[in-house]
Amino acid sequence: MGTHKQLTIGLFGFGVVGEGLYKVLQQTPSLNASIKKVCIKNFGKKRNAPAALFTTDKDELLNDRDINVIVEVIDDADAAFEIVTIALRNGKDVVSASKKMIAENLQALLELQQQTGKSFLYESAACASIPVIRNLEEYYDNDLLHSIKAIVNGSTNFILTKIIDEGLDFKQALLLAQQLGFAESNPVLDVEGFDAVNKWTFLLTHAFGIVPNPNSILFNGIQNIHSSDATVAKEKKQGIKLVAQAKKLNNGKVAAFVLPQFVNQDDHLAFVKNEYNGVVIESGFADKQFFYGKGAGSFPTASAVLSDISALRYEYKYEYKKLYHHQPHELSNDIFLTVYVSFDDLALIPKENLNGLKNGMHKQIENI
Amino acid sequence: MGTHKQLTIGLFGFGVVGEGLYKVLQQTPSLNASIKKVCIKNFGKKRNAPAALFTTDKDELLNDRDINVIVEVIDDADAAFEIVTIALRNGKDVVSASKKMIAENLQALLELQQQTGKSFLYESAACASIPVIRNLEEYYDNDLLHSIKAIVNGSTNFILTKIIDEGLDFKQALLLAQQLGFAESNPVLDVEGFDAVNKWTFLLTHAFGIVPNPNSILFNGIQNIHSSDATVAKEKKQGIKLVAQAKKLNNGKVAAFVLPQFVNQDDHLAFVKNEYNGVVIESGFADKQFFYGKGAGSFPTASAVLSDISALRYEYKYEYKKLYHHQPHELSNDIFLTVYVSFDDLALIPKENLNGLKNGMHKQIENI
Repeated sequence: MGTHKQLTIGLFGFGVVGEGLYKVLQQTPSLNASIKKVCIKNFGKKRNAPAALFTTDKDELLNDRDINVIVEVIDDADAAFEIVTIALRNGKDVVSASKKMIAENLQALLELQQQTGKSFLYESAACASIPVIRNLEEYYDNDLLHSIKAIVNGSTNFILTKIIDEGLDFKQALLLAQQLGFAESNPVLDVEGFDAVNKWTFLLTHAFGIVPNPNSILFNGIQNIHSSDATVAKEKKQGIKLVAQAKKLNNGKVAAFVLPQFVNQDDHLAFVKNEYNGVVIESGFADKQFFYGKGAGSFPTASAVLSDISALRYEYKYEYKKLYHHQPHELSNDIFLTVYVSFDDLALIPKENLNGLKNGMHKQIENI
Repeated sequence: MGTHKQLTIGLFGFGVVGEGLYKVLQQTPSLNASIKKVCIKNFGKKRNAPAALFTTDKDELLNDRDINVIVEVIDDADAAFEIVTIALRNGKDVVSASKKMIAENLQALLELQQQTGKSFLYESAACASIPVIRNLEEYYDNDLLHSIKAIVNGSTNFILTKIIDEGLDFKQALLLAQQLGFAESNPVLDVEGFDAVNKWTFLLTHAFGIVPNPNSILFNGIQNIHSSDATVAKEKKQGIKLVAQAKKLNNGKVAAFVLPQFVNQDDHLAFVKNEYNGVVIESGFADKQFFYGKGAGSFPTASAVLSDISALRYEYKYEYKKLYHHQPHELSNDIFLTVYVSFDDLALIPKENLNGLKNGMHKQIENI
């Protein structure tokens, strides 16, 4: 029933996600979408698809009038931004999975969408298979959203789970994550919190209409968490999670940060282990909602890309309601956090400061 | 950005959900939707809204050309079906919360949607604030959905939680549920599983393209669960939940039922306590996804109705892809369930059967 747009796709990237998508599309003929051409960087590699599908010339996709959808799943943020810009200007709808590119170019991408009127969808860029952006757009499209907190980075959550639940030290846990493909060989982006704060940047746009610079959000990674902290957490019957959080303050502004936190056992986020992600949304009318699923990996990501492609058939666009139809919120740093400090060597601290520090030592970063 | 349809609403029903919706709409002016008229059964009651808003004449809403959306949140399934039928035939989009009406008239409602081409949305009818229908439509719109299991009835889940976790007996738990407004004064619909199987009926349509008669689905409620069963569950370190379940079998057919089950502590559904609902969707590419939220109550329900209204602005329709664009699945009873039997009086059973029964006594209804 109903008619919908025939989608002819130009795909940039044929890594794990791109190839995953190619396979998923082959198994979903009902979608009425086909990949006409795939642009890759390196022609040399062996690919699990017909050679005629591939090109290294991006203009073959971007200037093809038959192609009405560009799907971009490449690693290079600068190249991705160029592709998205040209595609939108050329009248094509775009689906992207590049969180870093989106976070760094958010304002420009918003303007491009307004200028061109085309769809730019990126559900897979945050929490992969969990439809968090779409639900923020559609289900909390009013001023009633109180707070959102989430685990948005699967690699760090995997590492923390191994440290806390299984007693591994940081290096062992990281190595295991890399062996299982949950962390990059250069893990700095994940471990030091850059990836999480990138995702948080545009989730704040959909949640509260804020268009922040990633640098303006307080964040820290898990690089300094040691087995001794796991011991403290266990004593307190708590876990440690890298939590992205945002909350409306009494003054109407929004506090937002990404920090490792102690998490109680009965907290929704305590349920989120290993490479999974989870999102808790609190609103005035629906109370707390919890979304949970795989936050990384080729097929979960491809599955989210597929849902964006599917939405293009009825010309779905993000409306950014909180940004355009409301008085958008502002970020505020006018908050107090209780911080837990741990250190190895008491001798480094002047004796006169020691008592105060000792008393404060086991305080946790509490929910604001 | 973007233009969208101005929505003028005719609302049927001003009980807890109807009034909740009225309040929610007042707090979301950005939605560009207004209630023009409310049809109620009984003019006598005091209402928290201007008297001029109300009528008892349904034709005032159904024949008003300005009204382009009918929202129906009344209790009477037969009256609701008549209203929905006329509204769709009169060219209006419809939002409904009446699970019983939808389950009992599913085939007719599908035909009406095809004949009229209008939208008929009912997200609030299953799991209230959890966007399960929309996500089944949009995120699992292909042949890759393996299984879905869920807690879809908040009243029974509340009662079971009190029995298992707090040692109340069935009658005490039911009374408490009624006092807190989680169960009807006539609780048969909830307690004996009718409400759950009604919801499961149309969730099967969105999940697998099956349009079952509610009578054709194997179901049982929680009316026969006693404190002694709670003791057995505790010994096994398990909970008891009323689980709605459907799974694709190797023969391509789908097994579906609603039955109380033992649930392991590490099962997603074990997390779902009291009046909450939860849905676990397993698919080939996204793996397991878990949705959790309030499954009942005026504001959670109103919040889901609001999201349907919001979706009408861009003329969203359920596509029923699995029904119309695929070979729809069929239900099958060709499955084996391991059943746990409990009884009070061993003397009622002939001695020669006793050994076998005793051995089988503590077997659980296992996931198929």
